[in-house]
Amino acid sequence: MYGFVSSSLIMALIVQKYGGTSVGSIERIRTVAERVAKFKMIGHQVVVVLSAMSGETNRLIALAQQIQKEPDPRELDVLIATGEQVTIALLAMALKDLGLKARSYTGSQVRIVTDSAHTKARILSIDEAQMRADLDSGHVVVVAGFQGVDEMGDITTLGRGGSDTTGVALAAALHADECQIYTDVDGVYTTDPRIVPEARKLDTITFEEMLELASLGSKVLQIRAVEFAGKYKVKLRVLSSFQEEGEGTLITFEEDSMEQPIISGIAFNRDEAKLTVLGVPDKPGIAALILGSVADANIDVDMIVQNIGANNTTDFTFTVHRGEFKRAMDILNQVKDEIGAREVSGDDKIAKVSLVGVGMRTHAGVASKMFRTLAAENINLQMISTSEIKISVVVEDKYMELAVRALHQAFELDKAVA
Amino acid sequence: MYGFVSSSLIMALIVQKYGGTSVGSIERIRTVAERVAKFKMIGHQVVVVLSAMSGETNRLIALAQQIQKEPDPRELDVLIATGEQVTIALLAMALKDLGLKARSYTGSQVRIVTDSAHTKARILSIDEAQMRADLDSGHVVVVAGFQGVDEMGDITTLGRGGSDTTGVALAAALHADECQIYTDVDGVYTTDPRIVPEARKLDTITFEEMLELASLGSKVLQIRAVEFAGKYKVKLRVLSSFQEEGEGTLITFEEDSMEQPIISGIAFNRDEAKLTVLGVPDKPGIAALILGSVADANIDVDMIVQNIGANNTTDFTFTVHRGEFKRAMDILNQVKDEIGAREVSGDDKIAKVSLVGVGMRTHAGVASKMFRTLAAENINLQMISTSEIKISVVVEDKYMELAVRALHQAFELDKAVA
Repeated sequence: MYGFVSSSLIMALIVQKYGGTSVGSIERIRTVAERVAKFKMIGHQVVVVLSAMSGETNRLIALAQQIQKEPDPRELDVLIATGEQVTIALLAMALKDLGLKARSYTGSQVRIVTDSAHTKARILSIDEAQMRADLDSGHVVVVAGFQGVDEMGDITTLGRGGSDTTGVALAAALHADECQIYTDVDGVYTTDPRIVPEARKLDTITFEEMLELASLGSKVLQIRAVEFAGKYKVKLRVLSSFQEEGEGTLITFEEDSMEQPIISGIAFNRDEAKLTVLGVPDKPGIAALILGSVADANIDVDMIVQNIGANNTTDFTFTVHRGEFKRAMDILNQVKDEIGAREVSGDDKIAKVSLVGVGMRTHAGVASKMFRTLAAENINLQMISTSEIKISVVVEDKYMELAVRALHQAFELDKAVA
Repeated sequence: MYGFVSSSLIMALIVQKYGGTSVGSIERIRTVAERVAKFKMIGHQVVVVLSAMSGETNRLIALAQQIQKEPDPRELDVLIATGEQVTIALLAMALKDLGLKARSYTGSQVRIVTDSAHTKARILSIDEAQMRADLDSGHVVVVAGFQGVDEMGDITTLGRGGSDTTGVALAAALHADECQIYTDVDGVYTTDPRIVPEARKLDTITFEEMLELASLGSKVLQIRAVEFAGKYKVKLRVLSSFQEEGEGTLITFEEDSMEQPIISGIAFNRDEAKLTVLGVPDKPGIAALILGSVADANIDVDMIVQNIGANNTTDFTFTVHRGEFKRAMDILNQVKDEIGAREVSGDDKIAKVSLVGVGMRTHAGVASKMFRTLAAENINLQMISTSEIKISVVVEDKYMELAVRALHQAFELDKAVA
């Protein structure tokens, strides 16, 4: 049990972060306490970072919205910071009930100093002295995730998924040997096992791949936390809080790995919609004009593809979140004449499928193999977009599962790398 | 409306404390915000102190007790302090929704420094600089009642009813013109209107009388807050948060009043039980021996009466909380032989009725009028105990209401003092 820790980490300092479902009930909190106790008993120092009980943050936001449609950000932070304050107190009690020494700290108490951007604050500094003293005197330190304090002493929060960031930031400040993110999955998979039953859990994945997978809709880790871990070289591990055993997935720095697989995983989502502006005069400033009008409306754009068309015109296609599709179409129809476009069209029945892998950098032919695989299934490609470690295609959404399964098999992702 | 304030207090600094039922729902919080707004609009500076939503503190304690039968006090304070943190944020939002400037502060943020006696901490100091700056810049300051922070930065709470104490302490620190305690009654009455329909609301009452009434079971104000207000000469007013108008009851210093009524009110309770040790040898140290054994078991004693009996023996009677009756009887039966008592008896079917009034100091005959009134109703007196401003009697509990009504009429408490 916990073999990876007892074998590779002796008397280590470990930061463990547990999400909302892992502390969603008294019973679950007890289970977390028991897991922490096992790590303590092996001889490790443990800092625990907690989210609010699942559903609690939404409950508090709903309360606030009954009072103000757009709740005041400073006061909203005061309100929702109570969610983690409840769980840290309860876990500290559960640890003490097991005979352990434990102390809980809010973000403010442990001096997680942030900027003053309420509801989306960024961590500026962490005072690790108190935590270090507590660890040295044998305490488990239990810290509220997601929250901090600005230089005026006002309570701040880090935004959704901020507890992951807190965990990584504490691990960085304490030079922890490992930051373990406990969640409801037991690691990072080559793709979603609900779509491809042969999907395989990865033992390791690089930070870059994890970033691509996270931003493509894999819900395992908050992208900001991954960036943070990469920046401060924090060893991250994703694990299940619902399983007793298992080593999860270790997120590594590329240079650590002897051999990388060509493809690590396949990400996909149906969250997007596609908009196309046809027959735009091909002259400078047109892209800025089209995207500017959309950006001004605070609509995020994901993929962008531009092709040169006939008669000095160009066709311009981009994707937005599906929920913003109608609004984006309205905007394009408004600016259509201004930009001299022939036509505006859109489609919200699309899906994006992406191959991710640092290995594709050094392996030619990944794209052609991908396209051939999809062609063999008669799946038409509507858009293609590539980066150094990722190839994304947009297909009709009814083909998404078929595309993912075909690619998973073609690239033999069910087989572990030798 | 709020005539007492606009007439007697011009551009005043007012601390308003609202209890759990006054902030028990979103709708009630809005009502509080509207009341605060009216005070602001007249030109007053307002500091608001809030309790947790009614029921919330008990809910949190129940959560803790599911984990630890006797929750760790430090962690319990971290947990239950979230209750007021929720209400201050929501009220600040409601005030902003009305167009007011407002800022919420936890006990820790506003630097209500206490000792480290978790769950029953005492306030040591308050840093009023931030509040003063906020008030001067036109903000309503909203402070979490019931909680503070010790010198190590740990969250503390003041114990039940501690929000009243917070209100009074802030009023003292800020030299506020008035501390208004909003509750679900509209003031202090001559006695409980449910027992005596003619009971009259008092416009004023002295601190000493309030202390006697509070300790006798009147639930209007926490006794500790009253003591605090008396010590720091804070002008206290009890008001209803459920009524638009009304001046409540002002708690005055005796020297302020031109004329005091003889009797201010009648307190009563059925919470006690009586224990008697009969035929105790009348020698020094016996009282200490009897009460010492009870005190060692952490049982609080209220009234104590000792009479000299026959043959150099004495009869010793005291009252305890009714819930402790059986335990106290067991203890007395254990020490009975040790103290050489003839017999131990007890009765938990008793009630205590008390007349309270600073005026009785200078008016003879109050006691005899009280006893005559009760005798005329054939009510037997089992114990009598007097202080400078109070006369208490113990009667069979079925006579309690009759005694209160008879005394209320005899002392003409339904009639206002000319």
